[in-house]
Amino acid sequence: MTAMLTPHHDGSSLYVSDAAPHLGDTVRVRLRIPHELGPVAAVRTRSNPDHEPRFTDAAVVDSGDGWDWWEAPVEVENPVHGYRFLVTMGDGSSVWVNATGTWPTETLDADDFRLVAYDAPPEWVRSTMLYQLFPDRFARSSQANGRTAPDWAMPAAWTDPVDDVPPGRSQQFYGGDLDGAAERLDHLVELGVTLVYLTPVFPGRSNHRYDAASFEHVDPLLGGDDALARFVAAAHSRGLKVIGDLTTNHCGDGHEWFRAALGHPDAPESDFFYWLNAEHTEYVAWLGVPSLPKFNWASAELRRRFIEGPDSVVAHWLKPPFSLDGWRIDVANMTGRYRDDDFNTEVRRIIRRTMVEVNPDTILLGESTNDAAPDFQGDAWHGAMTYANFTRPVWGWLSEPGSRSTYFGQPVGVIPSYSGHELVDAHTRFAAAFPWRVRQGTMNALDTHDVPRFHTHARQGTVPVAFGLSVSMPGIPVVWAGDEFGLSAEDGEASRMPMPWHLLGADVDPAAVDPATGVTAEDARAMLDLYRGLIALRRRHPALSDGGFRWLHVGDDVLVFVREHRDESVLVLASRATADVRLPYEAASGWASAAVVYGDVLIDVDEPGEEDDGGARLRVDGPAFVAVALPGVAPAGD
Amino acid sequence: MTAMLTPHHDGSSLYVSDAAPHLGDTVRVRLRIPHELGPVAAVRTRSNPDHEPRFTDAAVVDSGDGWDWWEAPVEVENPVHGYRFLVTMGDGSSVWVNATGTWPTETLDADDFRLVAYDAPPEWVRSTMLYQLFPDRFARSSQANGRTAPDWAMPAAWTDPVDDVPPGRSQQFYGGDLDGAAERLDHLVELGVTLVYLTPVFPGRSNHRYDAASFEHVDPLLGGDDALARFVAAAHSRGLKVIGDLTTNHCGDGHEWFRAALGHPDAPESDFFYWLNAEHTEYVAWLGVPSLPKFNWASAELRRRFIEGPDSVVAHWLKPPFSLDGWRIDVANMTGRYRDDDFNTEVRRIIRRTMVEVNPDTILLGESTNDAAPDFQGDAWHGAMTYANFTRPVWGWLSEPGSRSTYFGQPVGVIPSYSGHELVDAHTRFAAAFPWRVRQGTMNALDTHDVPRFHTHARQGTVPVAFGLSVSMPGIPVVWAGDEFGLSAEDGEASRMPMPWHLLGADVDPAAVDPATGVTAEDARAMLDLYRGLIALRRRHPALSDGGFRWLHVGDDVLVFVREHRDESVLVLASRATADVRLPYEAASGWASAAVVYGDVLIDVDEPGEEDDGGARLRVDGPAFVAVALPGVAPAGD
Repeated sequence: MTAMLTPHHDGSSLYVSDAAPHLGDTVRVRLRIPHELGPVAAVRTRSNPDHEPRFTDAAVVDSGDGWDWWEAPVEVENPVHGYRFLVTMGDGSSVWVNATGTWPTETLDADDFRLVAYDAPPEWVRSTMLYQLFPDRFARSSQANGRTAPDWAMPAAWTDPVDDVPPGRSQQFYGGDLDGAAERLDHLVELGVTLVYLTPVFPGRSNHRYDAASFEHVDPLLGGDDALARFVAAAHSRGLKVIGDLTTNHCGDGHEWFRAALGHPDAPESDFFYWLNAEHTEYVAWLGVPSLPKFNWASAELRRRFIEGPDSVVAHWLKPPFSLDGWRIDVANMTGRYRDDDFNTEVRRIIRRTMVEVNPDTILLGESTNDAAPDFQGDAWHGAMTYANFTRPVWGWLSEPGSRSTYFGQPVGVIPSYSGHELVDAHTRFAAAFPWRVRQGTMNALDTHDVPRFHTHARQGTVPVAFGLSVSMPGIPVVWAGDEFGLSAEDGEASRMPMPWHLLGADVDPAAVDPATGVTAEDARAMLDLYRGLIALRRRHPALSDGGFRWLHVGDDVLVFVREHRDESVLVLASRATADVRLPYEAASGWASAAVVYGDVLIDVDEPGEEDDGGARLRVDGPAFVAVALPGVAPAGD
Repeated sequence: MTAMLTPHHDGSSLYVSDAAPHLGDTVRVRLRIPHELGPVAAVRTRSNPDHEPRFTDAAVVDSGDGWDWWEAPVEVENPVHGYRFLVTMGDGSSVWVNATGTWPTETLDADDFRLVAYDAPPEWVRSTMLYQLFPDRFARSSQANGRTAPDWAMPAAWTDPVDDVPPGRSQQFYGGDLDGAAERLDHLVELGVTLVYLTPVFPGRSNHRYDAASFEHVDPLLGGDDALARFVAAAHSRGLKVIGDLTTNHCGDGHEWFRAALGHPDAPESDFFYWLNAEHTEYVAWLGVPSLPKFNWASAELRRRFIEGPDSVVAHWLKPPFSLDGWRIDVANMTGRYRDDDFNTEVRRIIRRTMVEVNPDTILLGESTNDAAPDFQGDAWHGAMTYANFTRPVWGWLSEPGSRSTYFGQPVGVIPSYSGHELVDAHTRFAAAFPWRVRQGTMNALDTHDVPRFHTHARQGTVPVAFGLSVSMPGIPVVWAGDEFGLSAEDGEASRMPMPWHLLGADVDPAAVDPATGVTAEDARAMLDLYRGLIALRRRHPALSDGGFRWLHVGDDVLVFVREHRDESVLVLASRATADVRLPYEAASGWASAAVVYGDVLIDVDEPGEEDDGGARLRVDGPAFVAVALPGVAPAGD
């Protein structure tokens, strides 16, 4: 594919006059059309209120740099109001423009752009950067040494390797705690992230604590309720926000509600679960794992205790002294779904309503590991913890071909090998159906505690490319604790490593190897510098959070896109090999003042002349991540 | 594109062991893989119960004719249970197979195949052929002559041309009636259709009667309740079924419920509508047309009177003596939807539940003119009256390029000109997300009372091609009254013509022209023969109703597919120009006994030899529709 001069719209503020409209408001939406497309007779929007098409007419509001800006009014008639554009050419032919691209034939409603009239997310969501932390493995405080390991635990020393085979897999116990984590908050500040995501802190019978025994108290092994309050306060004092992790699909079989209900059909908690026999001794569990009984969200009492109103679990931890800044919800995709029950929409909306009542300045993320968009339309979840639109496409493009991997539980054997085109296709397929605000709130994770670490199979030299994409594509950049030291792991169990803090000591030999993780001090420090640099890039350039998103070039080995914004735009080139890309001059605006702000690239610009159209040539040597600042872009009257 | 030897599955009975499973049943699903794909290491199904992936392993159950049949169990865990296939090749690469085709990258849930555990449609739905009839314009009985036209009407003689400009558009009154229609039932029997769809028969203040003044009685101008009972009885005695047309989105402003409620906030019918002021004198109406007030389906009393239970309107007309065989629901897409209300799912399920209580052997069709599939998942509607998956793609391919048309209300100016590839793309995009049973129940209409007539802009010689596709692609073939005589009309108003019955008289001059429609007797009779022949083709070959659906060749000007079934398969070639197609020998099975059963085609078959792979060559002269019978296909043990 050569450069892409095609009509463009996205949900960003350059293209939509009001990103947080109310029902009944009229919003102006804009389409940029390159002159190269040819004479345009008319541009219309096509909305679909109440599932019936409605058209409005657009007019040209500005022209320049080889493009026209068309603008049209759209009334927001439903809470999620889809729209697309119909461009009628001078020859009578027509082109549809939707969130997946341009099409000669009619398109699906699911591929429309979207205006959302539900409550907007907090401002900070779109510029935040997330750090994921697994409490048992992050850091131990001195108090931790005084605690006795529980009966189920297999205590480990901090430098022991991870045991990823049962029973050690869930029982190996490093004894990290929240006060230990608080002691390491400066590491996060120096890294540059702004949001800490703690995997569960409630007591369980496992190191991961996804088998909650209660939602009433923080696990004493982590320091208890007070330690959480201290941790959040310490984070807040450094300008960091903190979110917790709730399991709404299931709890542990040691949970107080489940213990009360098991074998007691008359218990008040009886209808919290799905029972398979009259004695209530057999029950439905997450993927059939008996230690994780599944919640039945038909229960009004379960809703009241857990998610609804100011006395619920959801509310409790958002209030002082804990003051969490939001929740990540585990297995959000399965929550409330079983056979012909589907309470998912109700449950997620109640959760968010409760959060808004307590503190609207909070974030709600939902785990949905595959095709998330149908549930993520802006009514509740601000963003998804998912792998379909970013993680797996990036793995497919940047992993060493032929790498064998558990690959997120998919039985593929070998990590699929994607071309740049396939990365873009897969990304677009899974991201297009998110409203723009949800796309901005969705996690661009290279990996998490549930999957292999990206570094493990990365092609030589491509970690900067991958994390560069995490900080520059729409979404929340994510660091899974340890990635900033270059840790590797073959699967989601092995990836839960203790952090090799001692490698950072000023007097540590650069060649010193951490026994638990196998990384050297030198490599860990180099990786930390890389992460800090890319996070700083994102912070310095608001276009990377808030700008539009337009592909300029897609090749097998190289991708170029631009994040356009009013004050400054940023062009990004990501390559997995040496690359030489020619872009049309009109591909971007303001070449004369282009300034490389990350990476190494040679840029040659030819002004358009009488005999040639000009263009820009970008050359990089080997795998590269490059960012180039360009002047801002906006139509007149914006 | 050359021939397509790719893995194939569809929801037909060759590929699914149980098309009407119950929740919890295990169904065997099959994938056919051509040897040409290369060595296959493994085939798996990937389901998505409760929105979480689950995989099962397939095994080869038969091989032959260059293909392997793989089979795997799938447990139906949700009422609409999506699944796809993952083919892992010998080299470790993988291919996904879903309802839209084969893909190197992961695919959307919406593109999955589907098993449906909701009540199955009646057996007869999938083999029925529908005839749509507009009572004012179909036929007058002798009794009609004695009736006085109502105050709103502008009476017309049967041979007057249609007045498509207001006020005549809705008020021109030809005075057709149900007894007149009953007198013409033999025409339908001879045509070969099996299902009559009557547009509304309730009284209104328009010739189309979509502005119902009551659902309690049939319009006396049509002969009243007794005439409907007589019409249905006469149809049933000829083996024809009959369905009515209900407006669930709105009624007329003369409707008894609306009159009771208008200006009377305390009326029992008050909450049947959306009011815009406290006096209940301003209200929400369909697309703002004041004569069509919109129903508010939050009302329990509206549900009770109209759709719920044995005393409802929905039930009443299915019971003797009327005994309708089902309903077509007008504006099904907008029903129950307004701003942040969406009762659509509830309403359609209640309608179907009521129908099942009265007579489960009935059909329920819903109008949804664009992207219908999201509402048509098998929970209520058996099929869609829609234009996106069949009508408009066929128009795009077979209309004279550059034809100007109102084109179904889309402001495109010129009918889009599609290649065969674009027809297939558009068809697949809008049909793939229907469960197979819904695809079988969806109307393959070339046109209806709401759109221009297809004949109007058809390329020379392509009417057989278009109607041939209607009878051979999955779905219900549709004849809109008058198409079988070759009527033309520029839009949906002009298309509501009085039927030119007198042209059929044995003593009519072949050159005689019907003044209302402009067709000659000779042309009308030739077209009638064409329609009879194609309908007979469908009736003679059950594979055209029930067979699988596999594309063998897609070109700009020619399409070839096969409908495969156990006892007999039918290969179809449709072309808009002279064509010469070469298919691989393995494209279909049983070439040696190929028999042309419709149209003219030269078939040359080369058996595979030592030096060449053989193949089949199909040649047609000019636009053509061709059907070729082939032996049936089935895996061993089927």
